[in-house]
Amino acid sequence: MIVSALLTSVGINTALCVLFLTLYSVLRKQPSNYEVYLPRLLVEGISKRRSHFNLERLIPSPGWVAKAWNLSEEELYSLAGLDGLVFMRIITFSVKIFTFAGILMVLTLPIAPWMCSLYQMLWVHFCAVYVVTGFICFLLFYEYKHISSRRISYFYSSKPQPHQFTVLVNSIPASSGSISDSVDSFFKELYPSSYLSHVVVRRTNKIQSLLNDANNMYKRVAQLRPDPTKRKIRHGALSRLFGKRSNHIERYEKKLEEIEENLRLKQSEASLAGEARAAFVFFRTRFAAEATFHLQQSVNPTQWITELAPEPRDVYWPFFSESFIRRWISKLVVVLVSIVFTILFLVPVVFVQGLTNLSQLKALLPFLTSLLTIKFVSQIITGYLPSLILQLFLLLVPPAMEFLSTIQGYISHSDIERSATTKVLWFTIWNVFFATAFSGSILSMMSTILDPKVIPGTLAVVVPAQASFFITYVVTSGWTSVSSELFRIIPYILNLITRLFTTPDDEFELPYMPYHKDIPRVLFFGLLGITYFFQAPLILPFVLAYFCLAYVIYRNQFMNVYVPRYETAGKFWPTVHNSMIFSLVLMQIIAVGIFALKKLSMASTMTLPLPVLTLLFNEYCRKRFLPIFVGYSAESLIKKDREDLNDPTMAEFYNNLINAYKDPALVPVQYSSNTDSLSSPLISSA
Amino acid sequence: MIVSALLTSVGINTALCVLFLTLYSVLRKQPSNYEVYLPRLLVEGISKRRSHFNLERLIPSPGWVAKAWNLSEEELYSLAGLDGLVFMRIITFSVKIFTFAGILMVLTLPIAPWMCSLYQMLWVHFCAVYVVTGFICFLLFYEYKHISSRRISYFYSSKPQPHQFTVLVNSIPASSGSISDSVDSFFKELYPSSYLSHVVVRRTNKIQSLLNDANNMYKRVAQLRPDPTKRKIRHGALSRLFGKRSNHIERYEKKLEEIEENLRLKQSEASLAGEARAAFVFFRTRFAAEATFHLQQSVNPTQWITELAPEPRDVYWPFFSESFIRRWISKLVVVLVSIVFTILFLVPVVFVQGLTNLSQLKALLPFLTSLLTIKFVSQIITGYLPSLILQLFLLLVPPAMEFLSTIQGYISHSDIERSATTKVLWFTIWNVFFATAFSGSILSMMSTILDPKVIPGTLAVVVPAQASFFITYVVTSGWTSVSSELFRIIPYILNLITRLFTTPDDEFELPYMPYHKDIPRVLFFGLLGITYFFQAPLILPFVLAYFCLAYVIYRNQFMNVYVPRYETAGKFWPTVHNSMIFSLVLMQIIAVGIFALKKLSMASTMTLPLPVLTLLFNEYCRKRFLPIFVGYSAESLIKKDREDLNDPTMAEFYNNLINAYKDPALVPVQYSSNTDSLSSPLISSA
Repeated sequence: MIVSALLTSVGINTALCVLFLTLYSVLRKQPSNYEVYLPRLLVEGISKRRSHFNLERLIPSPGWVAKAWNLSEEELYSLAGLDGLVFMRIITFSVKIFTFAGILMVLTLPIAPWMCSLYQMLWVHFCAVYVVTGFICFLLFYEYKHISSRRISYFYSSKPQPHQFTVLVNSIPASSGSISDSVDSFFKELYPSSYLSHVVVRRTNKIQSLLNDANNMYKRVAQLRPDPTKRKIRHGALSRLFGKRSNHIERYEKKLEEIEENLRLKQSEASLAGEARAAFVFFRTRFAAEATFHLQQSVNPTQWITELAPEPRDVYWPFFSESFIRRWISKLVVVLVSIVFTILFLVPVVFVQGLTNLSQLKALLPFLTSLLTIKFVSQIITGYLPSLILQLFLLLVPPAMEFLSTIQGYISHSDIERSATTKVLWFTIWNVFFATAFSGSILSMMSTILDPKVIPGTLAVVVPAQASFFITYVVTSGWTSVSSELFRIIPYILNLITRLFTTPDDEFELPYMPYHKDIPRVLFFGLLGITYFFQAPLILPFVLAYFCLAYVIYRNQFMNVYVPRYETAGKFWPTVHNSMIFSLVLMQIIAVGIFALKKLSMASTMTLPLPVLTLLFNEYCRKRFLPIFVGYSAESLIKKDREDLNDPTMAEFYNNLINAYKDPALVPVQYSSNTDSLSSPLISSA
Repeated sequence: MIVSALLTSVGINTALCVLFLTLYSVLRKQPSNYEVYLPRLLVEGISKRRSHFNLERLIPSPGWVAKAWNLSEEELYSLAGLDGLVFMRIITFSVKIFTFAGILMVLTLPIAPWMCSLYQMLWVHFCAVYVVTGFICFLLFYEYKHISSRRISYFYSSKPQPHQFTVLVNSIPASSGSISDSVDSFFKELYPSSYLSHVVVRRTNKIQSLLNDANNMYKRVAQLRPDPTKRKIRHGALSRLFGKRSNHIERYEKKLEEIEENLRLKQSEASLAGEARAAFVFFRTRFAAEATFHLQQSVNPTQWITELAPEPRDVYWPFFSESFIRRWISKLVVVLVSIVFTILFLVPVVFVQGLTNLSQLKALLPFLTSLLTIKFVSQIITGYLPSLILQLFLLLVPPAMEFLSTIQGYISHSDIERSATTKVLWFTIWNVFFATAFSGSILSMMSTILDPKVIPGTLAVVVPAQASFFITYVVTSGWTSVSSELFRIIPYILNLITRLFTTPDDEFELPYMPYHKDIPRVLFFGLLGITYFFQAPLILPFVLAYFCLAYVIYRNQFMNVYVPRYETAGKFWPTVHNSMIFSLVLMQIIAVGIFALKKLSMASTMTLPLPVLTLLFNEYCRKRFLPIFVGYSAESLIKKDREDLNDPTMAEFYNNLINAYKDPALVPVQYSSNTDSLSSPLISSA
C-alpha cells in the first residue's frame, strides 16, 4: 500500500469535507437557499424568509451540528417516521460494530510484537473473525427485536387509518356485468357483516399524461403573466427574451383551455367506463381486512388476489397491472432485465471509456487538439475521464432500478423503493465490489460464481489485493457522497437556475428521502468494513469517520430537508438485516480462503462452521421476526378493533373511508378562470 | 448392448411374472390366505372363509385381472379414497406419456433408413425432445387441474368432519396457570363468537410403551389359554413345546394384571398433570379454523403457532414436539441426517460388499470351504451376493426414511408419509440413477454436482453408457417388484408362520398402502423412461409393460387388500408433479450435453431454453394449483359453513367434536377380567 498516496487522498478529502461543511453552514443562512436547505422549516413556518441583510449570515457556525447531534430518538421519530428511524439505526448499528472491531484490532496490536510470526498472527485473526461475527449477530438480533417492537407499538398507538381497513383486490375475473357489481356481490356474499364498501380502480394513464401537460402549460402561463406584487428588477436582463410576452400568454392560455376541456372529458369518460380489474375493498375491522389478505379468496388462486392496501398517499396510481398472468410475466421480465443489467453493466461503460483515449478525443473534438498536446492537461483528461464516465453511469442506476421496480407491478411507492433498494444494493456489490476485485473481468467473475468450489480460494487472492483501493474508496467516494448529500449540489444548482428564470414562489415540492439511493450506499460501506476489518484493519477508522459524518448529516437532513413520503413502519429493516448477513458470510468465506492460502488448513476448516451458523441464525431470525414485517398478528388486530368499538368518531371514519382512495388523475381541475387555486392540483400530482 | 443378455433377462422375468400371477390366482382362492390376499373383503364380510375343499380352487383363473381392469374411477375412489385415485393416476399418466413417446419414436423409424447420417438422426431427436416435453407439460397441467377440481369437489361433498373445524396450536407459552386455562382465555378473548372448545395434548410416551407391553402380554396369554372352540389337531406337533402351559398362563396373567394396574395409574396421572404445550382448538365454522391457521396469532410469531388439524384417525400421537425451537432444531437435524444418509449410503454398502470376496468368506465361514471350491457355486455367490446385499440394504430405506420423518415433528401419519415419499424419491434418484451412472463413485458425483458448468457434459457421457443396465433394471427390478407386490411375499410368509403358532383369529390388522414405498418406485421408473426415451427408445416397451402390470395389480390391491389409513384429498400430487418436472429437466440437460458432445452445438444451444421454459411452467403451476393443496379458499369454506346453518345435526356434531381427538393411550383398558372385549385396544393402538 502506498502510504503517501493514501495520506494525500485523506488530506484532500478532509479539506474538501471541511470546506463543504463550512460553506453549508454559511449558505443555509441565506434566505434564498432556504428552499434547498431548510424546506421543512419553511413549510412549517418556523423559518421565515428574512430579506434584511446582517453580517452574522456570512460567518460559518457549527450550531447545526450540535442541533443534529442532540436530536433525541423520539424527536427523530416524529420528524422522519419509523422509516427514518430505521435508516438512522443502520448508521448507529454500523458505528457500534466498527467501534467494537476497531477496539478489538487495537487490543491485538500489543500482542503482535512478541508473536511476530505470521502463523500466530493468523490465529489472532481467526479469533477476531469468530468474536466479531458473534458480536454482529448479537447486535443484529437485538436490532431486529427493537425494530419489531417499535413497529408493533407504532401500530398500537396509531389512530384508525384507511389502509388498515382496506385490501386491494387484483385479477377480478371478467363477468357480464360491471367490475363494481361483481366486487360488490362477491364480498357481500362472503363477508356480509364485515364488508363495508369498495372503489374500483380506473385506467387513467392517458389522463395522467394530459394532466402533466396541463400543469406544465399552467406553470408557463403563470410565469409569463404580469404580476404587480413581484419586483421586476431581477428580470431586467432577461426581459428582452420575453418581448412578445402578451402574444405568448394568449397562445398558451388558449392551449391550456383546450387541454383542460379535453381533460375534463376524459375524466368523466374514465369515471363512467374504463374500469380496471382491480378494486380497493373496505372492511369494518382491521382483522377482517388482514384475514382477507391471508386467505385465498377464490377457488381459483389466480383470481381475486388480495394484498394489503398501501397508505392512500403511498399508492402508485399510474400503473395498475390487473391480470395475474400479466403481473407475473412483467415481474419475471423485470427480474431478468435487472440481472442482465447488473451483470453486463460494465460492458458499455468499458466501451465508452475506451473511446476516451487521446487519439479518439482529438478526432471527435478537433478544436481541443492544441489543448490536448499539453502533457498535464492530457494526463488529467485521460486519467480522470474514465472514472468520471463510470460515476455518471452509476448516477443513472438508482433511477433505472426504480423504473424497473415500477413496471414490476408494485402498487405503492414504498414497495417500489424497497424493491429498488435491493436491486441497487446487489448492483453495487456486483459492479463495485466484485468488479474491482476481479479487475472488471466479467468472464472470470461469472466462472467463479458458477464454480462454488473455487470461490473461497479465488476471493482470498483477489479481495485482499484491493484493500488499498477500497480504503481510498471509503475516503473519496464515501466522505464526498455524504458531504455532497449535506450540500445538495444538484438541488442547489437547480434552485439557482429557477431563481434566474422564474419569480420566487411559496409553492414548491418538499423533497422525499431517496431511500433506494442512500440505503444501498450506507450498506455497501458496511460491507466494505466487515469484509476488510481483519485483512486491512486500517480501513476501520475511515469507515468509522464515514458513519460518524453520516450520523450527523442525515439527522440534520431529516430535521431540515426531507419529509416522509410514506410510512412502512420499518419494512426496510429486513433488507438491511439480509445485507449484513451477506456481508458476514462473504467475510467468512474470504477468511476460509485466506487461512487455506496461508497453509493454515486447521483454521480454515474451523472457520467453515461459521457461515453455516450465521445462515442458521438468519433462518431463526426469519422465523422469529420476519412475519411481524409482513402483517400484524390476530392478537394486535383484534385489540385495536376492540378499542374502536367505543369510539364515537368511527362512524365518520367509515364514511370517509370510501373517499380515501381517490385517483388524483380524477380530481376535478380548474386552471383558467381562477389562477390562485391551482396549488392543489400541482401538489397532489406530485 | 448385449442383445442376448437382454433377451435372456426378459425371458426369465416374463416367466417369473407369469408364474407369480398364476400362483397368485390359485393362492388367493385358499381360505387360509384370505387374510393376505383378500383382507378387505374378509372384513366387509363379502368373502366368508369357506373350509370345504373343491377342485376349482386349484385351477388358475384370470378373472381377477378382468375385475381389476373394469373397476371404474368412481368405484376406485370409494374404495381407496382420493389418495388411491392419485396413485392410480400416476400410473395412467405414465402409460399415456410412454405410449405417446413410443408412437413418436416408432414413427421416426421409417425416416431413419434414408437419413442414415447421425447428424440428421440427432435433429430428429432434437424435435422429439421438444415434442415430448410439450406433451408432458400439457398432460401435467391437465392432471393438476383435474386433481385440484376433484379435491375441491371432495371438500364440497364432504360431511362436516372434525378436522375441518379444528386447528392444532403449538408452542403455547408457559404461564402461571394450567395450559388448558391459558388456551381457553387466549381464544375466548380473540374469537368469542367462533371459538368452541379445546383439548390439551398430554404427554403419553410412557403410557404408550406400557400399553404395548400389556398388548403383547395379553396376546401371549390369549394364545396359551385353552380354547374349547378351536381344533387342536394342528397344534399336535407343537404341543410338547407348551408342556408347562398352565404354569406359564398363571405367571403371565399375574404380570398382565401388574402392568394393567400400573397403566391405569399412569393414565390417571397423565389426565391430571402431564399437559404438553399443544392443544386441539375447535371452532364453530370451517372459515374460523382456516383463518386461525393462516393468520399469525400472537405478537411473537414463535408462539401460538397454528396448523390445520389432521383427521382424528390420522393423528400421530406418540410424538408431539411442543416448543418452536425444539421442532425447528429437530427438523434441521433430520434434514441434515437425511442428506448425509442419502449421499453416504453407498459407503457402508460397498464396504460390506467388499467383505464378500471368496477369501473373506472362507475365513468367516470355514465350513463352507469345500462348497466354495466348486467353481459354479463360488461364481454364483460372489456374483450374486453383492447385489443381494444392496437389495437388503435398500429394503431398509423406506422404513428408515419414515422413521426420520417421524422425528421431524410432523403431527400426522399422512404428513410423515408424504415427507418420507420425498426423501425416498431423492434417495432412489441419487443412489440408483446417479450412483449407477457414475459407477458408484461418490466423489465424482459430488464434484459434478458442485461444478454446474460440467453437469451436461458429464451426464451426456455417463448416462447413455448405462442404457442397457437400466433397460435390464426395468425388466428385473420393475417387473419383479410389481408382481411381488401382488404376491405379498413377506405378509404371506408371516401369515404362514403365525398360522403355525397361533390359532386363527378373526381379529387382524388391515394393511395400509405404503405410499412412501410405492410412489417413489413408480416415479423412478417414470424418470428412467423420460430420461432414456430418446437415447435408448428400446426402454419404452419395457417401461410401458411395467406400468400396464402396475395398473392391473395396484387396482386389484386397492380393491382387495389395502384400506385407506387417512384421506389427504390428493396432497401427494404436488410431489408427483415436482418429480416429473425434475425428470424432464434432467432429460433436457442430458440432451444439451449429448448434442454438444456430438458436435451439434446449434441443437445444443436451441435446447437450452427448454429447461428454462419447463421451470417457468412449473412456477406457473405452483401459483395456479399449489395453494389449493395447502388450504381451502374462503369461497368454498363459507359456502360449506352456510350449508351447515340449516343442518339440525350440527348441535350434536359440535358436542362430539371435543371427543374426536382423544389420545388412544388414554382410553381406559380392561384385559384381565373380560378377555373378549380386548379387540378394541388392540386395534386402536395400531
